[in-house]
Amino acid sequence: MKNIFIIGAGLSTDSLIQYLLNQAQGHGWQLTLGDISLETAQRKLARHHNGRAIQFNINEQEQRTHEISAADLVVSMLPGALHPLVAKECLKHGKHMLTPSYVTPELQGMDKAARDKGLSFLNELGVDPGIDHMSAMRVIDRIKKQGGQLLGFKSFCGGLVAPACDDNPWHYKFSWNPRNVVVAGQGVAKYKEAGQYKYVPYPQLFSTLSRVDVPGYGEFEAYPNRDSLQYSKLYGLEEIPSIMRGTMRRPGYSAAWDIFVQLGCTDDSYIMQDSHLLSYRQYLESFLPHKKNKSTEEKLAAFACLSPGSEIMIKLRWLDVYSDEIVGIKDATPAMVLQKVLEQKWTMAPQDRDLLVMQHQFDFMLAGQRKRIISSMSCEGKNQENTAMAYTVGTPLAIATKLLATGGIQLPGVHIPIMPEMYNPILDELESLGLKFSEEVIDL
Amino acid sequence: MKNIFIIGAGLSTDSLIQYLLNQAQGHGWQLTLGDISLETAQRKLARHHNGRAIQFNINEQEQRTHEISAADLVVSMLPGALHPLVAKECLKHGKHMLTPSYVTPELQGMDKAARDKGLSFLNELGVDPGIDHMSAMRVIDRIKKQGGQLLGFKSFCGGLVAPACDDNPWHYKFSWNPRNVVVAGQGVAKYKEAGQYKYVPYPQLFSTLSRVDVPGYGEFEAYPNRDSLQYSKLYGLEEIPSIMRGTMRRPGYSAAWDIFVQLGCTDDSYIMQDSHLLSYRQYLESFLPHKKNKSTEEKLAAFACLSPGSEIMIKLRWLDVYSDEIVGIKDATPAMVLQKVLEQKWTMAPQDRDLLVMQHQFDFMLAGQRKRIISSMSCEGKNQENTAMAYTVGTPLAIATKLLATGGIQLPGVHIPIMPEMYNPILDELESLGLKFSEEVIDL
Repeated sequence: MKNIFIIGAGLSTDSLIQYLLNQAQGHGWQLTLGDISLETAQRKLARHHNGRAIQFNINEQEQRTHEISAADLVVSMLPGALHPLVAKECLKHGKHMLTPSYVTPELQGMDKAARDKGLSFLNELGVDPGIDHMSAMRVIDRIKKQGGQLLGFKSFCGGLVAPACDDNPWHYKFSWNPRNVVVAGQGVAKYKEAGQYKYVPYPQLFSTLSRVDVPGYGEFEAYPNRDSLQYSKLYGLEEIPSIMRGTMRRPGYSAAWDIFVQLGCTDDSYIMQDSHLLSYRQYLESFLPHKKNKSTEEKLAAFACLSPGSEIMIKLRWLDVYSDEIVGIKDATPAMVLQKVLEQKWTMAPQDRDLLVMQHQFDFMLAGQRKRIISSMSCEGKNQENTAMAYTVGTPLAIATKLLATGGIQLPGVHIPIMPEMYNPILDELESLGLKFSEEVIDL
Repeated sequence: MKNIFIIGAGLSTDSLIQYLLNQAQGHGWQLTLGDISLETAQRKLARHHNGRAIQFNINEQEQRTHEISAADLVVSMLPGALHPLVAKECLKHGKHMLTPSYVTPELQGMDKAARDKGLSFLNELGVDPGIDHMSAMRVIDRIKKQGGQLLGFKSFCGGLVAPACDDNPWHYKFSWNPRNVVVAGQGVAKYKEAGQYKYVPYPQLFSTLSRVDVPGYGEFEAYPNRDSLQYSKLYGLEEIPSIMRGTMRRPGYSAAWDIFVQLGCTDDSYIMQDSHLLSYRQYLESFLPHKKNKSTEEKLAAFACLSPGSEIMIKLRWLDVYSDEIVGIKDATPAMVLQKVLEQKWTMAPQDRDLLVMQHQFDFMLAGQRKRIISSMSCEGKNQENTAMAYTVGTPLAIATKLLATGGIQLPGVHIPIMPEMYNPILDELESLGLKFSEEVIDL
């Protein structure tokens, strides 16, 4: 396999492209990088002699057929909804495919056809999903092999700001899509604890917190992710009494964020009257009960039962939410306005570095002793452009691409990296690059 | 107009049919009553010699055309979504139509066609919507005519249980669709206060309460309805600084109901794992944080920060929510389970009578004096079958039908009863039947 076709040259593709270009000469690969913007594709390849940049639109049938049929292996960095278009074309022409995205039912439906043709469609190869699967399954398989019985599994991941660049009371900056952060957790969170299924509605989510300590980085808190239950099947833990996945933030973040949730500021389902005319202060007033002769901040403190000097009120004040600046977005939902407020304060500066943290906690019984393995990983970005997020998404995908191209992975069908044939070589190479999980074992 | 065709003989049609049968001989009317169940239609007509019962299915094109073309005037008591089907047929054959339901955009779109053909499509002729429009507009028009300037409008309505039949700590029983009560208020409530648009998210709804006193019935509380803002346009109050509509309950109901909301028990958006195996107690446990050696009730009290003897805990205990009885509904949402719990306790007994209460509060400036008119109405049902709810829905619609049939209303187009030509004769006749608003005027 010599011809690798990468579709999409967006934000999280830098590490992927760099890794594959570095390996291209040795393996005799030809890399084609297609993007809606030819200029972007050209810039990312930097005239590398094994690279070819093209203007590419996945929706143009003729071009899609032409480029995919000319490749041996296709890496799709498109938005998740577009992967099936790529996959169908790959099936037709007998090409392998890799993506960092969640397997959708539509993609899963192509499993048999891919198997029959001996094609590998490998997915969830970024960080979350990706490294989370691989690092968790390596430990789970080891515990089972030793004869241990799993009693609990918790897994936490967070994209935050590196401590050296942390200069705000929320201890948070956007390292990923801001919109996803604003609407995160809406709906219900499902997990299992001590044999009982648990459901956490959105208004309780940010007060349902676990404490997480990461070596070298101190204390974090985590709120439950939407659906932790599906992981018991995915990881072969059908009988496990406790399972939860969660999102990590610095302590205190969730309690302050919960004020926005309780006010209704994160609602993305309706448009506010005359939203473009509102000041930030009037925006907040829209969610606060009417009270004569009280400032917005006083009303907010009363709403939240907080004293003006409390940490939460300090966090809110720091966001300039009481300002008379005009929102200026026509037909905005509450969530859209809140996103604008936050983007003015939480955007990373050019030299800011992000932080990616992940921790798994495995509780198990082994030879009559209840034990816990705590497995932690952290990664800091280099600057606003070369983020830990992009590095940890792109690198495992790049390694998997190399392994598939060189025969190091041979797995026909639609897969995610939960089997040793995938997670062992990928995790081993990640370790050699410095992306390593530390492990602590304690007796409970 | 001699031939009146009533479609649907369901729960709320008794008063309508009775009224029209009583008037039929004097006016020489022939009433056709069509229902999916011929037996139901026959029973409701009780062999009245001006009545004809038929088995009728609105989805059968041929029958629909035949019966509607044979009528002069059609009263549709079908679910709201089916009215457009009736309306299109009425347009085609040149027939008038009446419904108790909200005007949908689709129905509103037929306004010009109806006008052009001289047809009246009269809607929102029940109690809420219906009597609320009429009674509010009569006072609003009077205040404006006197030269008053409206500063605030609040309107509250509730379907509850008559005091003599009130034997539970919630002071509530179902007098209408239980499902609607369980999911009531989901989404956001919008109103306006002191010139500021206000938005109340669901988790705050049942703690955003107004106090309402109804003559002869004492104190109630009211939570805001979903969209009060649309009424400022509907009622010609575009400039009014304060407008809110709300749902009435007995004091204490909302604070206790809010526990279900905060727990997530009213969520109708997902299915609970193994719902048919859960006991009521386990159902509650699904929403409560895990704690060792604590009873469900203790966990619930801790969750809600309540002492075991508090009124809210008494209300919850009275519902038997801690019982080991099995839910027994497969693939149930939290809301479906809660509805089952409530139906076992809140269903009206055969001799129970319901209570319908409505109150408008109009604040206005007249000759330099700020005043308030409080306009209240109440109605008690006769028993489980002849409810105040059915009476107040059916009677104004029946009166409007008579007026339309006899030329007392001549209003081509799609209308709701907000103009004097409609509200005056209907309210006058309702008064003569004993359904009367009392009025109190106070200087503020």
